[in-house]
Amino acid sequence: MAHIQLPEGLPGIRGPMAFRPETSKPLNELAEVLLRSDNSLSRGDRELIATYVSYLNDCFFCQNAHGGLTQHYLGWDIDQLDKIKSNPEAAPISDKLKALLAIAASVQKGGKQVTADQIERARNADATDIEIHDTVLIAAAFCMFNRYVDGLATWAPADRMFYVNRAKARAEEGYANYNPYH
Amino acid sequence: MAHIQLPEGLPGIRGPMAFRPETSKPLNELAEVLLRSDNSLSRGDRELIATYVSYLNDCFFCQNAHGGLTQHYLGWDIDQLDKIKSNPEAAPISDKLKALLAIAASVQKGGKQVTADQIERARNADATDIEIHDTVLIAAAFCMFNRYVDGLATWAPADRMFYVNRAKARAEEGYANYNPYH
Repeated sequence: MAHIQLPEGLPGIRGPMAFRPETSKPLNELAEVLLRSDNSLSRGDRELIATYVSYLNDCFFCQNAHGGLTQHYLGWDIDQLDKIKSNPEAAPISDKLKALLAIAASVQKGGKQVTADQIERARNADATDIEIHDTVLIAAAFCMFNRYVDGLATWAPADRMFYVNRAKARAEEGYANYNPYH
Repeated sequence: MAHIQLPEGLPGIRGPMAFRPETSKPLNELAEVLLRSDNSLSRGDRELIATYVSYLNDCFFCQNAHGGLTQHYLGWDIDQLDKIKSNPEAAPISDKLKALLAIAASVQKGGKQVTADQIERARNADATDIEIHDTVLIAAAFCMFNRYVDGLATWAPADRMFYVNRAKARAEEGYANYNPYH
């Protein structure tokens, strides 16, 4: 049971977003800019960063909701994504994305954990300033979203295929026009 | 030196906000709703929650920028605020605010650290669902802002009176009309 009285039957962040539309508006606008708007990082790459940070924060809802989107964009199944989350350095992804995931993992621990060596590695793999900025902010934002979802003890469906099966519709809906009751 | 090339001379979050106005817009709208819009928690109480979480995350810029605002609203000096940050249970604040700060401290560690006992304590001190929700989201949001500021290794003035002296103008400016170049 959630810590506060939320609208019933809405999984994860959808309950608090329906409860407090005043804060859900900027939260969804932030997600839209970070994860979907024009960017040299693909939507799949950005959803993977969000998924990986949510995995490190052990947030079941976020890692599966954004994991489903990552799978949708990048064509992976659950097993492939699980392997990548547990060992991104061995994953079939670009050197740039590996370097950005390492930065994201440091941000998850705390802002000061990001090292000059990690930044240099990303630059050597052709990461731009905007890509580094957005990686830091995506990772930081999911340290917020994960704490929001778990800090209120929200409910989430345990069946991981629930999220995979909804991902295509979620990708079409986007965040800016997000309706928590859908 | 910051990890990426930011506009020069802007302290703390102002550099990244000037660098990436697309993300600063929803970030400032979120801060405006959480910290300034109509609420049964005063602006001072909400800035104290933000300051306390920033202190726990050891973010110098955020704890002093929002600390200055807290002092401005609540009439405290730096020494009084420092004592409250280091031991809120002994502070001259309401039982409700103490209970909300304890919830915020748990959110800072991780969403799952919030306990049913902490929620019950807050309710027994007459905290409403909205107040508990907003406390969780303010604490979560500052886990984002702190990581954003420190994850990019932004610069911040070392003189703490810099923040205290600017607080009145910052309080008048608000977040929605925030101009990073001011």
